[in-house]
Amino acid sequence: MNANTEDNRNSQVILRQVPTGLLGPDDFEVRQAPMPTAGDGEVVVEAHYLSLDAALRLIVRDSKDFLFRVEPGDLVRNSVAGRVVESNNPDWAAGDYVVAATGVQNYGISDGSDLELCDITQAPLSAWLGGFGVSGLTAYFAIFDECKPQPGQTVVINGAAGAVGTMAGQFAKMAGARVIGIAGGPEKCKWLVDELGFDTAVDYKDGDLYEKLVEAAPDRIDFIFDNVGGSVLNESLRWIALRGKVLMCGSTSQYSEEEISGPSQYIWLGTMRASIQGYVVYDYADRFDIARKHMAQWRAEGRLSFPEHVYEGDVPDFGQAFHDLYSGRNKGKMVVKLPAADT
Amino acid sequence: MNANTEDNRNSQVILRQVPTGLLGPDDFEVRQAPMPTAGDGEVVVEAHYLSLDAALRLIVRDSKDFLFRVEPGDLVRNSVAGRVVESNNPDWAAGDYVVAATGVQNYGISDGSDLELCDITQAPLSAWLGGFGVSGLTAYFAIFDECKPQPGQTVVINGAAGAVGTMAGQFAKMAGARVIGIAGGPEKCKWLVDELGFDTAVDYKDGDLYEKLVEAAPDRIDFIFDNVGGSVLNESLRWIALRGKVLMCGSTSQYSEEEISGPSQYIWLGTMRASIQGYVVYDYADRFDIARKHMAQWRAEGRLSFPEHVYEGDVPDFGQAFHDLYSGRNKGKMVVKLPAADT
Repeated sequence: MNANTEDNRNSQVILRQVPTGLLGPDDFEVRQAPMPTAGDGEVVVEAHYLSLDAALRLIVRDSKDFLFRVEPGDLVRNSVAGRVVESNNPDWAAGDYVVAATGVQNYGISDGSDLELCDITQAPLSAWLGGFGVSGLTAYFAIFDECKPQPGQTVVINGAAGAVGTMAGQFAKMAGARVIGIAGGPEKCKWLVDELGFDTAVDYKDGDLYEKLVEAAPDRIDFIFDNVGGSVLNESLRWIALRGKVLMCGSTSQYSEEEISGPSQYIWLGTMRASIQGYVVYDYADRFDIARKHMAQWRAEGRLSFPEHVYEGDVPDFGQAFHDLYSGRNKGKMVVKLPAADT
Repeated sequence: MNANTEDNRNSQVILRQVPTGLLGPDDFEVRQAPMPTAGDGEVVVEAHYLSLDAALRLIVRDSKDFLFRVEPGDLVRNSVAGRVVESNNPDWAAGDYVVAATGVQNYGISDGSDLELCDITQAPLSAWLGGFGVSGLTAYFAIFDECKPQPGQTVVINGAAGAVGTMAGQFAKMAGARVIGIAGGPEKCKWLVDELGFDTAVDYKDGDLYEKLVEAAPDRIDFIFDNVGGSVLNESLRWIALRGKVLMCGSTSQYSEEEISGPSQYIWLGTMRASIQGYVVYDYADRFDIARKHMAQWRAEGRLSFPEHVYEGDVPDFGQAFHDLYSGRNKGKMVVKLPAADT
C-alpha cells in the first residue's frame, strides 16, 4: 500500500494485435503509465492477484459478434483481486479487499460500481477470483440448479482440471452423482481422483476417448458439463443418455481457431431427445451470497477445496501465464500473484 | 388388387452404392422380383403411394452411428400407403387401407406388426404419409408440446416449404405466434404467405439471411424449428432471443456432406441462455389419435391443409423423385403415386 511512493510505477498490459492461434506474450506489449489518482467518487485499486480467464481469447477476436471486445491498443480487460489504496467514495475505504474489473495493471481507477468486497475470513483473497469467485459460482449453479443430477446419475466434466471443472466435479459428487473428469495427461487425471474425489478421470490425449467413455460410463452419460467444445464434446455426445443434457459453460478448444466449429455430433441430440443448454451465472446473482455461505461452510468442514495454480510474478508476466493456461499447465484456477500481495 | 395376375410384376428399388453428394437415380438399381405370397400370419401389401423422406440420406451413409442403415444391395426402406391384397392374419383384411414399412416396391410382405390402419374418411390416403402422418404429427407435438409458443412470440421455421415445415407453420399460427418461414426461392416464399398463412417468408438463396431475419423479427427469435441445420440454422442462431429454443427435427443440409458440420454459432446459446433440444415424435405415440382428431376437424373447418407434391410414376421413379426432393422441387410432402392407386 505504498501507493504514493516513486517505486510504484504502474505497468499495464496492452493488446498489441489481433492474435492468431494461441494467445501468448508476443500478442501483448507492456506500457509504463503514471500512478493514477482518485477523482471525485473514485477509488484507486492496487492489484494483488490477476485473474486468468479463458474467455479473454474470445473477446480479442476480430468479430462483431461479441458484446465485449478488447481491440489492439486497449488495456486488457480482466478481473483482479486487491485492495483499495485511495478512496474518494463513501462506500469504500482504503484497506478494503476487493475484486475489481480494473484490467491487467498494478493500479486502476474504479467508480466503485464494479467492486466486490472480499471478506478474507470466508476464503483467501485469491480464491475470490476462482473457486470462491465466478468460477466456483458458475460450477455451483450449473450443478445444483441447471443440471440437478440425481444420485447414481453420471456427470462428465470436461476441462475437469480447470477453474470451473475442479469445482463442478466436487459439487457433482456432493449431489451424489458418479463423476467422470476429462483432462489432458495422466498426472492431472490422477490428481482429479486422488485429491478432488472424482470417481474416475479420462485422459483425452491418450487413445480413443469415445471407447474410454463407454467403458467408464456403461449406462451412458446423463450430463455433460462442457467447458471445451470441439472433439472432446463430440466424443461425449456420441454416448449421451436418453434425455441427457449438455450444459454449455465454455468452448475453449474453439476460441483460438480461425473458424469456430460447432458440435458435429449434435445429431445425437435428436436420437436421444437430449439438449444443449446455454447458461450465464449472473442470472443467479441474487443468490451468490447463499452459495458462498455454503461454500465457506463446506470448506471449513474439509469437504471442499478451491484449487489454484499460482504464477508468482508481476503484471508483465500476464502474457506468458495466459499462454500457460491455454497449454493446460494449470490445475485449478490460474492467477498471477503480484509483489503487492499481502495475503 | 390384381395381386395374382401375371401383369403384376413386383419392381424393387435396391441401393447400388454408398452415395456421395446428392442421392439420385444412379445410386439405385431396379430389380424385378416375383410376386410375394402371404405365409402364415402374414399379409401382402400393395403400395399406392411411396413416401419420400429426407432422413433416408442419413441411413445410407457408411457410418456405424445410426440405429438403422440401408446398405448396398438392400431394398430401400421407406413407408408406403396402400392396401392389403391378401391376408393370413386375423387382424387385417383384404381391402384395408394401410401405411406399411414394406420399402420401395410394389408389393411387400408384413407380419402385421408394422401396419397402421388408415381411415380415408379422416384424410386422403396419401396424407397418411404426410400431413396426417408422421410429418404432420412431428409438427403437431413439436409446436404444441415441445415449443408451446405464446401469442406474440416469434417462431422461425426453416425448410418451411417441406413436409414438416408446412405443417409446423400452420400449427404455430394457430398458437398465435408470429411465423417466419425460411425457404428457397421467391415462388415458395410467396406460396407460404399466400396459401399457408405464414406472416412472412425469407428466401435463404437471396441476399444476407441474417440481415433479413433481423428485419423480419425485430424482437429476435423465440423458437427456431430446425429441419435443415448448417448455415441457415447458424444465421438464425445469431438472432435468437433470450432463453430462446431451437427444436431440432432434422439437419437435411448436412445429410449429403462427407463431414457433418455442427452449428458453429452455438456459442450464442451461452450468451442468450438458449437451448437446442432434440425431439422424437414417437415419444408421443399414445396421443397420435387425439392429434389426428384435431387435425381432421381443423381440415374440415378449412383451417388446415395437408400440402403435398405428387410425383406421378412408378417404383423405378423413386430415385429421381428423391433427387427432386433434395433439389427442393417440392412444396409440401413429396410422394410417388403408383399406378395401383385407387384414391
